[in-house]
Amino acid sequence: MLILKQLQIDQMTKKILLIGAGLSTQSLVPYLKSKLHEYDWHLSVLDRDFATAERRLGTSDERCRADSLDITDSTALDAALEDAHLVISMVPAHMHLNIAKGCLKHKAHLVTASYLTPEMRSLDAEARANGLVFLNECGLDPGIDHMSAAKLLDGIRGDGGEIVLFESFTGGLLSPDSEGDNPWRYKFTWNPRNVVLAGQGGAVKFIQEGKYKYIPPHMIFRRTEFMNVEGYGRFEGLANRDSLKYRSTYGLEDVATLYRGTLRRPGFARAWDSFVKLGMTDDSYTIKNTDALSFRDYTNLFLAYNPHDSVELKLKYYLGIPQDSEIFTKLRWAGLFSDQRFPFSSGTPAECLEYVLKQVWTLDADDRDLIVMFHKIGWRKGNQWGMIESSMGVEGKNARQTAMASTVGLPLGIATKLILTGGAIDLGVQMPITSQWYNPILNELANDFGVTFHEKEVPYTGY
Amino acid sequence: MLILKQLQIDQMTKKILLIGAGLSTQSLVPYLKSKLHEYDWHLSVLDRDFATAERRLGTSDERCRADSLDITDSTALDAALEDAHLVISMVPAHMHLNIAKGCLKHKAHLVTASYLTPEMRSLDAEARANGLVFLNECGLDPGIDHMSAAKLLDGIRGDGGEIVLFESFTGGLLSPDSEGDNPWRYKFTWNPRNVVLAGQGGAVKFIQEGKYKYIPPHMIFRRTEFMNVEGYGRFEGLANRDSLKYRSTYGLEDVATLYRGTLRRPGFARAWDSFVKLGMTDDSYTIKNTDALSFRDYTNLFLAYNPHDSVELKLKYYLGIPQDSEIFTKLRWAGLFSDQRFPFSSGTPAECLEYVLKQVWTLDADDRDLIVMFHKIGWRKGNQWGMIESSMGVEGKNARQTAMASTVGLPLGIATKLILTGGAIDLGVQMPITSQWYNPILNELANDFGVTFHEKEVPYTGY
Repeated sequence: MLILKQLQIDQMTKKILLIGAGLSTQSLVPYLKSKLHEYDWHLSVLDRDFATAERRLGTSDERCRADSLDITDSTALDAALEDAHLVISMVPAHMHLNIAKGCLKHKAHLVTASYLTPEMRSLDAEARANGLVFLNECGLDPGIDHMSAAKLLDGIRGDGGEIVLFESFTGGLLSPDSEGDNPWRYKFTWNPRNVVLAGQGGAVKFIQEGKYKYIPPHMIFRRTEFMNVEGYGRFEGLANRDSLKYRSTYGLEDVATLYRGTLRRPGFARAWDSFVKLGMTDDSYTIKNTDALSFRDYTNLFLAYNPHDSVELKLKYYLGIPQDSEIFTKLRWAGLFSDQRFPFSSGTPAECLEYVLKQVWTLDADDRDLIVMFHKIGWRKGNQWGMIESSMGVEGKNARQTAMASTVGLPLGIATKLILTGGAIDLGVQMPITSQWYNPILNELANDFGVTFHEKEVPYTGY
Repeated sequence: MLILKQLQIDQMTKKILLIGAGLSTQSLVPYLKSKLHEYDWHLSVLDRDFATAERRLGTSDERCRADSLDITDSTALDAALEDAHLVISMVPAHMHLNIAKGCLKHKAHLVTASYLTPEMRSLDAEARANGLVFLNECGLDPGIDHMSAAKLLDGIRGDGGEIVLFESFTGGLLSPDSEGDNPWRYKFTWNPRNVVLAGQGGAVKFIQEGKYKYIPPHMIFRRTEFMNVEGYGRFEGLANRDSLKYRSTYGLEDVATLYRGTLRRPGFARAWDSFVKLGMTDDSYTIKNTDALSFRDYTNLFLAYNPHDSVELKLKYYLGIPQDSEIFTKLRWAGLFSDQRFPFSSGTPAECLEYVLKQVWTLDADDRDLIVMFHKIGWRKGNQWGMIESSMGVEGKNARQTAMASTVGLPLGIATKLILTGGAIDLGVQMPITSQWYNPILNELANDFGVTFHEKEVPYTGY
């Protein structure tokens, strides 16, 4: 079998399939549409729900169409992939593998914004043999975080430096002018279910000044650090699940400090910790007859029985929330004591919490979101030590044109263009951590979309 | 197929197989040996490790023998079961099912002290059809707790009462005269691994005054209640995992309060909660190079990095343990700050914690353990309300003759006798919650072994 090492491109019309037309494709579709004529592309926007695909595509012409596709129907998926040159898969992560196997069969490239799984990695040789690129983790986080970090790391190493510290944080929040009186300074700007379930699963693992550190899942929201991001104010950083796996990704096998995290406004994590302590984020069992419960009754499920005391006082006492704490303000504002009822008849504690929070954390039409990214990289050259802080902020226009959708979708669109227009692109299963990806993608994001990183050298302070 | 309803007994020599000769068979084996001649039994004590089986059996004669048996070797298991009349299975719970299937094939009765699983329950019809009894949950907890509770419940109902409240607690602790300066007032008297992993898995579920209540696993050790058990002092009760499943077992579908729990000495749970908060009870990932770690280094894995502060102060600060709290005394005494090293090269956090605690919580040769059981049952007859408190305490003789081994093993031995000597015993998969079991077993425990319950009527106070 001929093993190709780099991408071969011919001159025919290229057919792009976008599978999954959810919120995060808001910016991706207009980007692709704007290039159809210039690059001789044809775009199919497919979704399980035809109306969603049609609404996402907007005006159509002979170069683009919307259609419905149920990817669990293998015959339909096979037919859809038949003449595709490149597939952008925006379906839930566990569904990518089936699509990837179809791409191998029909010789189509694949681009996703999801974490690279061992199963996807195992397709590497076959993808290479077929002259294909399977690019993963090419959205925001993972995506732009990798690209901007890898560029900084390569720059320091090219300059003879050794990396001693790597910290990286990303947050999807609200623009300050859309925060109003919301004490959480937060609304849902991506999948609410994922926000509610965040921090569950295994223990957090990272390395600090050469020492391994572990945090159990139920304590993640009590182990935060504060940081200022120039131009955007003060944030708190919460540890992501397993930072250690990024040692090999970033070539940081010997780094003394490695920490990846999520940004929220200060005070978010302490209040969210109340949901965790109460057991409201549990997705492992079902509560029955939820349609007979008010939000207040739901809250009371997690508190000791008492015929006299109020749910409010029992909660404050149980969680040890002082009278003068803003935690309680946040919980009350979130609706935990509301008489509103659930419209469904059963659900897990997490599904109920998601419903409660959707009442207050759904973006209003003119709400503007904010994406903030912050890297802190420590280096050493002989006896010289230094640190680079690099930050990025992007604000959305409104609830239909969010910064979240731009920063997730545009890297996918630019990567699509890079693959379909050829150039020195390596084949196989990839992440955008090499200069062939990060240079053109970061350049276009900065020049055409205002996604810019501000770097500054600061004295080395360590972790 | 002939379906028998009650046990048929013939007069030949009965062969009893005891599979698994661990600590909890300390009292069971002498009990069985004392009956071999009287009832014309033959006893085989089998263990994966021959020396363990031999040591457990002690002196042998033509009526008893020790042997090795690897129950994962299906040929060997089949051969061992060949001529057995009754099997007492004391292997880990997940291994009972294979033995049960062998019992069906070779027409042997089965007795265990483990929780009845749905898989075991599914063998009911086949066991009946073969004239067999498969008795489960016939040790201490589950076991004596069921029997004593069922007897009380049946008594109240027979007297025209309706059950409105049911709480039941069991604890395996230390006799006060063996507590010494141990601030936990606790040592391992059963499988240490199970103690370390206790409280993990799903949420705690119970019902209090008609209200469903849920506690997430990581908060179990902060939701205790105190109680006095006459003659044995003060204890704290921690909720067991899922009390709700006992509604059907005990016929308590409409009870307003149902709560099952574990007893410890006051202060135990708050200190144990530190292990949970730190993440030391996590069994889901492996720490490498543990042989390079002292117990103090292990503790530090779960605390933030700092080049100056002591592990002690970081821990107290992180967990919010006040200077004047006995929690810290307990943690220090347990060895969390010791320079002793682990002898193994890798292990989960829970395996490491088990090793740390074994250094201080292993019974000394002359330590005496204590079993305490406490039931609180509320009843109503028309407008009359009342409550019965029933308590039991048994002390061990030393580390080789523990109360734990007596209370787990003797019910199994007595049940074996009941099955092999016939009488009005129902066939099929069973728990000892009917009078055919609880009357003779509780009577013999009280008359011959001093395991007695003290009951008193108290005014109804509710939950």
